[in-house]
Amino acid sequence: MSLEPLPRGATAFVVVELQNDLVHPSLVGQKGLSGKLAEAVQTRGVLARLARLLERSRDAGVPVIYATKERHPAIPQPTQPRIYKVAGGTPKLVHHTWGAQVVDEVAPRDGDLVLARFVSIDPSHGSELWSILANLGATTLIVAGISTNLAVEGLVRAAANRSYRSVVVENCCASFPEEWHRFSADKILPLIADVVPAADVEAAFGAWS
Amino acid sequence: MSLEPLPRGATAFVVVELQNDLVHPSLVGQKGLSGKLAEAVQTRGVLARLARLLERSRDAGVPVIYATKERHPAIPQPTQPRIYKVAGGTPKLVHHTWGAQVVDEVAPRDGDLVLARFVSIDPSHGSELWSILANLGATTLIVAGISTNLAVEGLVRAAANRSYRSVVVENCCASFPEEWHRFSADKILPLIADVVPAADVEAAFGAWS
Amino acid sequence: MSLEPLPRGATAFVVVELQNDLVHPSLVGQKGLSGKLAEAVQTRGVLARLARLLERSRDAGVPVIYATKERHPAIPQPTQPRIYKVAGGTPKLVHHTWGAQVVDEVAPRDGDLVLARFVSIDPSHGSELWSILANLGATTLIVAGISTNLAVEGLVRAAANRSYRSVVVENCCASFPEEWHRFSADKILPLIADVVPAADVEAAFGAWS
Amino acid sequence: MSLEPLPRGATAFVVVELQNDLVHPSLVGQKGLSGKLAEAVQTRGVLARLARLLERSRDAGVPVIYATKERHPAIPQPTQPRIYKVAGGTPKLVHHTWGAQVVDEVAPRDGDLVLARFVSIDPSHGSELWSILANLGATTLIVAGISTNLAVEGLVRAAANRSYRSVVVENCCASFPEEWHRFSADKILPLIADVVPAADVEAAFGAWS
Repeated sequence: MSLEPLPRGATAFVVVELQNDLVHPSLVGQKGLSGKLAEAVQTRGVLARLARLLERSRDAGVPVIYATKERHPAIPQPTQPRIYKVAGGTPKLVHHTWGAQVVDEVAPRDGDLVLARFVSIDPSHGSELWSILANLGATTLIVAGISTNLAVEGLVRAAANRSYRSVVVENCCASFPEEWHRFSADKILPLIADVVPAADVEAAFGAWS
Repeated sequence: MSLEPLPRGATAFVVVELQNDLVHPSLVGQKGLSGKLAEAVQTRGVLARLARLLERSRDAGVPVIYATKERHPAIPQPTQPRIYKVAGGTPKLVHHTWGAQVVDEVAPRDGDLVLARFVSIDPSHGSELWSILANLGATTLIVAGISTNLAVEGLVRAAANRSYRSVVVENCCASFPEEWHRFSADKILPLIADVVPAADVEAAFGAWS
Repeated sequence: MSLEPLPRGATAFVVVELQNDLVHPSLVGQKGLSGKLAEAVQTRGVLARLARLLERSRDAGVPVIYATKERHPAIPQPTQPRIYKVAGGTPKLVHHTWGAQVVDEVAPRDGDLVLARFVSIDPSHGSELWSILANLGATTLIVAGISTNLAVEGLVRAAANRSYRSVVVENCCASFPEEWHRFSADKILPLIADVVPAADVEAAFGAWS
Repeated sequence: MSLEPLPRGATAFVVVELQNDLVHPSLVGQKGLSGKLAEAVQTRGVLARLARLLERSRDAGVPVIYATKERHPAIPQPTQPRIYKVAGGTPKLVHHTWGAQVVDEVAPRDGDLVLARFVSIDPSHGSELWSILANLGATTLIVAGISTNLAVEGLVRAAANRSYRSVVVENCCASFPEEWHRFSADKILPLIADVVPAADVEAAFGAWS
């Protein structure tokens, strides 16, 4: 299948959580979830491909928004969701530290926007993403980042709830284990989004000029 | 693992979409997604088990809320999410018809509450569920229904976003194909909820008296 | 000032709470807040003027949505906000009763949509209004109804939060006492909405053809 | 009237928008809305009184959260709400500048939390305030700041929508003109909140020990 046209002037790009403490190349080979996520991102070639696609997006006038997760010392970690116990160990993604920043290779440029959140699984919950998208006149989201099953799928579900169209850039996403990425990308996401490779998005930008 | 205690006076039960047009026993063997869902619900014995658990819940003073999906003639189906094309065919779940009602075996009783929605994938989006739960003083949700991967998982994700605790009654949920149910129940949901059989919830109620 | 053009195909009309138990003409002269509201609505000529404007709207292809407030026996009235104590007395606006229906003179027609809520002050909170508007492609709301200061202003504030444009039909709104209506219509609403008479909205529809 | 007891361990304090570009003492006497707001804050003695009350709150273990408004260069000002034209002139409250910071006299301390927003009128819209409050177990908000009619009232309305209790510290709020403050504090807010002087809140803390 090929991607239906993207609405010029009404499309925005959201990059999900590609932050140093989660996927910095130096984490590859380390123990724990971050080591595995960093490896998945490296193996799939996400960063270089996404860096190129973000350049194309900015050139095409598409607003680029980063949705990040941070940990704030004044907010206790939720006690119930097990995911926070899995994370365990040394606090990561701490507000105002290097670990919470987006990795250099796909880092925000002047004119991009970074929306951090402290609590939710869905990167758009408790952020002004929807108000800002309305403000920009955007009705279609291009989505990339990690992890495919949790935050990326969470954002796409939130978009579907609000009658937004989502386009997931499958080869700019990753999860661990790979089987999880495949389940989300092959089974769930196609029900509520277009799931395409970066090349299809570039082609859709090309059709604008 | 056994279920940690449920907070008495602060627990509510949410039943997701067990509506006639989706899972009525008469659909078993019919073509299409509903036929398969109805079969999964029957094979797993969801209705009888849930009916019993709901009785226990009402006896224990736990508020029972039904979150349903309806189709309203004044609201066009979303055009983007493929899920609506998959559904296709004759309109289902039409507002004010038998097909939109919860199946008899687990139907609402006097004092229960039915919250219908028309658009979203997440059964709590665009309903007053969260305001009502706050009003009732509930901080913990027991969740059952269909389909495990979409609406049930959607509700549990929404609860995690809001720092609510969720308890998913695994053997009162179903999806099609079974592999999808298993993925959600075994991989994703345990990260953000307690996933337990009905017997564990009954035992938790028993501990209250 | 005259009203800037309304976007054709992207404008929807929301009618707020003109329900029998609040403003039915038979209440005029009765004690209590409803008697006073009904009188304000009658004195200002809201119903006849709005009935005409709604006809013009439907003729112009503008979707008409009713946002109503209902009381559900399974939901306890909030105990804190004093507004619920002020209301006091016999329960009003009870779900599935005549009192909860919109008054005949401006009642919904086939193809209109009624969105009831049970808890919130803002008529759009805990309803699917925003998802439905996105679904319809609407970015501009025309708003009329009662009471100007609470539910009408609440909806307009909610629209401003989401970067929607609102047009308040000032002579199709009412509050009690009149001083309250004036404060909202003259001071607060002009900061976040166009505040115009019905004739201006009709003129804006006229400009479409 | 005296204030009903505040729930220990379930009460949080939210300070609304007392930022340098809006109310810094050096603005008193200057032209424009900020000059007038700064004067109202000074005349009413808000900062010294609030500084003392915040100390009492921290001593009593009440979490203190600041809800601020910022302007981000990547987000266009909304074009519709007139309030943004009224503001006009040199951009204020710019992200990462002194003008966007809370004034020194009531500035955040270690352990406090600052939640900035870029778009909404309601300081809680598009922030994680509600998720964080749920996380903290808070069901009651103490609210102070500016301006009474817009952001403060907006937050209190949002709390009422969600079945939270609000306590507005009337002599720690301000608006311009004073008549506007009086309308909100005397007419609207008492319908949906307790409206009390700082001394009553201090007394309620005193009752905890």
